[in-house]
Amino acid sequence: MTLLARPTRRYDYVADGAAIYDESFATIRREATFDHLPADAERVAVRMVHGTGQTDLAHDLVVHPGLVAAARTALEAGAPILTDAHMVASGVTRARLPRDNEVLCALRDRRTPELALALGTTRSAAALSLLADRLEGSVVAIGNAPTALFHLLEMLLDGAPRPAAIIGVPVGFIGAAESKQALEDAPADWGLDIPFLTVRGRRGGSAMAASALNALAQERE
Amino acid sequence: MTLLARPTRRYDYVADGAAIYDESFATIRREATFDHLPADAERVAVRMVHGTGQTDLAHDLVVHPGLVAAARTALEAGAPILTDAHMVASGVTRARLPRDNEVLCALRDRRTPELALALGTTRSAAALSLLADRLEGSVVAIGNAPTALFHLLEMLLDGAPRPAAIIGVPVGFIGAAESKQALEDAPADWGLDIPFLTVRGRRGGSAMAASALNALAQERE
Repeated sequence: MTLLARPTRRYDYVADGAAIYDESFATIRREATFDHLPADAERVAVRMVHGTGQTDLAHDLVVHPGLVAAARTALEAGAPILTDAHMVASGVTRARLPRDNEVLCALRDRRTPELALALGTTRSAAALSLLADRLEGSVVAIGNAPTALFHLLEMLLDGAPRPAAIIGVPVGFIGAAESKQALEDAPADWGLDIPFLTVRGRRGGSAMAASALNALAQERE
Repeated sequence: MTLLARPTRRYDYVADGAAIYDESFATIRREATFDHLPADAERVAVRMVHGTGQTDLAHDLVVHPGLVAAARTALEAGAPILTDAHMVASGVTRARLPRDNEVLCALRDRRTPELALALGTTRSAAALSLLADRLEGSVVAIGNAPTALFHLLEMLLDGAPRPAAIIGVPVGFIGAAESKQALEDAPADWGLDIPFLTVRGRRGGSAMAASALNALAQERE
C-alpha cells in the first residue's frame, strides 16, 4: 500500500467538497424556517445551522435588522474582527474576508493574566479590554465566554468606542443565556443600539461565531 | 475613562474563571446522566456537554470501554494528536497536554489541494493521508469533515498504521451521522477494534473534539 494512494472505497459517500456544501445548505433550507429573521440574515442563519448540525437552532436566533448590512459594510471597509477565543479566529476562512481583515484575539497576550487579576474578572474579559483601542467600527465576535460579553457591554455603557456589529454567542451553563439576554435587551435597557446577532439559551460557541463571521464576510455562499 | 480600568458593573454575574468551571460542571452533573458510558469516560462526557451547552448530548455519546485508558496512555507516552481541522488544534489547551504533545493538521499543507484532486476526495480527507506516517499510536480527532472519518476508516482497512484512539465527531447534514455510524460499527463490520469515541447523529464539531481531547489529556478537571 502506498500511503498517498486512494484507499479502497468501502463506503458510499459524497466526497466532493462543493457538492457537500450544496446538499447541506439545501437540506437545511428544507428542514428549517427563517421567516422570523431579517431577509438578509437568512444565509447567515443557514451557515450557523450548518456548523452545528441542528436545524432547530434557527428558532433561537435573534438578529438585529441592521446587523448584516453593518457587519458587511464594516468588513468591506477593512474593519478588524475582535474575538474572545483563538478558536473563533482559527475558524474564520481567510479567503472569504473582503480586505484581508485582521482577526484579533488578546487571550494569549502576556499582559492578560495580570490584567484579569487587577480587574477581578476572567482572562477572556480582560483580553477584550486590551483590544479597546481597536473597538471603533470593528466587528466583535464573542464565541466562548459569557464574562467577555458582559464585560463588552459594560465597557460600551461606560463610553468605550462603538463597534459596527456584535456577534454575541457565548456558550454554557453559567451566565451564557443571561449575557445574551443582556445583549438583546441592551437597546431597551440602556439605549445601546448597536446591531447584534445572538442565540437565546445555552447554545453557542466558537464554531457558531466563526460560521456567522464567514457568512457575513461575503454574500456568496 | 481609562480603557484598562474595570468598567462600571451593571450586571450581576460570576467573573471568577475557576468558580464558573466548578458551577458549570456541577450543573451538568445535576441535569445529565452518564450511566450508559464507561465510568472513566464520565469526565470526558461532562466536558463535551460543557462545550456545547446541551445536557442531552450525553444520550448520543458512544464510548468504547478502552477509549479513555488508551488515549491517556498514548498522550502520556508523548503520542501526537492528529486532527482534520485547525479549529480542533486551536481548541486544545496546551497546558493540559502531559508531554507537550504535537498537535498536527495538514489542511494547509501546500500539497493538500493537489492530493485531494488526485485522490478524488476532499482536502480534509487528503490532509489525513499526508499524516499517515504519524498515525501509529497517535490520537486522531476528527471534528469537522465526515469525509475525513470515512477516509481514515478506509486507510485503516487497507492496513495503514493503527492509532491508539479515535475521537470521531464530525458535524453536519451530509455524511456526518453515517460516518460516525461506520466508526461505531467498524469492530462488528470489519473486526477493526480501535478504541473510539463518537456522538450519534448530526451533532459534532471542532469544539466537541477539542473538549474531548482536553478531558483526555489529564484526569484532573
